[in-house]
Amino acid sequence: MYCKCGKKAIIFRRYSGEKLCERCFNKSMIERVKKVIRKYSLIEKNDFIAAAVSGGKDSLVLLHILKKLSEKYPFDLIVVTIDEGIKGYRDKTIKIVKKNCKLLGIESKVYSFKKELGHSMDEIAKRDRKLSACSYCGVFRRYLLNKKTRELGCNKIAIGHNLDDEVQTILMNFLRGDLSRFGRTGSYYIYSNERFVPRIKPLREIPEKENVVYALSNNIEVGFSRCPYAGEAYRNNIREFLNKMEVEQPTTKYSLLRSYDKIYPLIAKNLAKKVKYCEKCGEPTIGNICKTCEFLEKL
Amino acid sequence: MYCKCGKKAIIFRRYSGEKLCERCFNKSMIERVKKVIRKYSLIEKNDFIAAAVSGGKDSLVLLHILKKLSEKYPFDLIVVTIDEGIKGYRDKTIKIVKKNCKLLGIESKVYSFKKELGHSMDEIAKRDRKLSACSYCGVFRRYLLNKKTRELGCNKIAIGHNLDDEVQTILMNFLRGDLSRFGRTGSYYIYSNERFVPRIKPLREIPEKENVVYALSNNIEVGFSRCPYAGEAYRNNIREFLNKMEVEQPTTKYSLLRSYDKIYPLIAKNLAKKVKYCEKCGEPTIGNICKTCEFLEKL
Repeated sequence: MYCKCGKKAIIFRRYSGEKLCERCFNKSMIERVKKVIRKYSLIEKNDFIAAAVSGGKDSLVLLHILKKLSEKYPFDLIVVTIDEGIKGYRDKTIKIVKKNCKLLGIESKVYSFKKELGHSMDEIAKRDRKLSACSYCGVFRRYLLNKKTRELGCNKIAIGHNLDDEVQTILMNFLRGDLSRFGRTGSYYIYSNERFVPRIKPLREIPEKENVVYALSNNIEVGFSRCPYAGEAYRNNIREFLNKMEVEQPTTKYSLLRSYDKIYPLIAKNLAKKVKYCEKCGEPTIGNICKTCEFLEKL
Repeated sequence: MYCKCGKKAIIFRRYSGEKLCERCFNKSMIERVKKVIRKYSLIEKNDFIAAAVSGGKDSLVLLHILKKLSEKYPFDLIVVTIDEGIKGYRDKTIKIVKKNCKLLGIESKVYSFKKELGHSMDEIAKRDRKLSACSYCGVFRRYLLNKKTRELGCNKIAIGHNLDDEVQTILMNFLRGDLSRFGRTGSYYIYSNERFVPRIKPLREIPEKENVVYALSNNIEVGFSRCPYAGEAYRNNIREFLNKMEVEQPTTKYSLLRSYDKIYPLIAKNLAKKVKYCEKCGEPTIGNICKTCEFLEKL
């Protein structure tokens, strides 16, 4: 299997028929991220971008690519990591984040559930067995990310969601009939609110597998451990199904993303709810009290 | 397992928790069809409705329920069957259609591919092995149904699509990125055109399994043979997946339908294409030449 440049290929993209050598693959990754950034105007001059980096492959690939781009594009970069307090998992990946930041010369901030909200995930998981740990974790993580990056003066948060994450989430919310969430998976953010830091997803069109190949081929040290609380059976079924459909029809994931992208502006315009401020903490919310304050009261 | 009326239950609806005896189940089926008809104003006074009946369980359950409703609602009913010319399959189901129509006292018309278009499906399947038989069949069937029911003076075509058909089609078109088709699966029809007979789907919210139970419990004679050309692997994967998700979360199919129904009017308004008339045959089409004329030229 050979690349069009004549060198030995390291990857075959079934969906496009391309065979690429290491050099052409890396070049193509950067080009595709740039294309997504241009298409949705994700990055503008003088942006101060917080890269949300967990230490997993996706967020670290994102960080390395953003660093590369920041050498040419005029934007500033800082790394923000949320420490949920999961022993044997997050403590390990935080070390990896630190190493990568040192290597790239990027400032890195860590904010912990325990210090900021009073409860680590290990404590929460022990206490409340009715609600899944993931419910708390997602709400608290998004809350802290938004609050802390705003306080740092960032005007955007870059997250490492890849193509697989995106299409799984889209399909999951569609199946669940959750159109309010369904309208929040877009390439750009529909809620504008001065206390809300918009999230951008530059890797949105990169298949998960290619992030792995990019990390390996660029010797990026990434964490491979899995969260001990992760157990989303629903998402796992969806992942399996989409992978199967992609085998049958190798453009399925992209087609689904295109479908969504065409519907997205229509839903966003029609179903978007007005963002208010939480009566307790002042953070942006759709209800009167934000989910974080609601959950904190339970604990 | 007992019905709330005290009799022995014959069905358990996981999605609603209801256990129903034969009598309560039958009553509930009729009520649900009525509810869908009212919700989307599917049937109005003095409608002349062509029931598209193939002889399978869904179309025959539809026919029996419509007949029941026609005794109270003021609308007229005729049965239209398309004979694709598939030996050992359609010839058998046509006999079943005839028997049911005789039993119910409803006039029945049969239009064949061979007589109307010059080619039976058995002939087409032998000739063109590149394009799937289903492609021809679907196009020709819809064409004849529309043309013939219009010539009969019908103002609506009732088709037996059940909940499973609907959600499979919705998901299939979503995955394929086919938004033009995606915008055509709604409960009411978005294209209005004087040569186009609108299609209604009164069974749209009835799970396939319940159509089977209704047919059995009402001694409706239905055809159970499968089309020899049917081989939609793509749809089969989708069916399997949705059934699996429904086991995990017994309201998945309804949730998906609700999602779609909320999105539908937005897409319909924005993505609907203007209907024109085919330059060759004068039937409604989106392009200049209709698919039927295009396919007939190939043969």
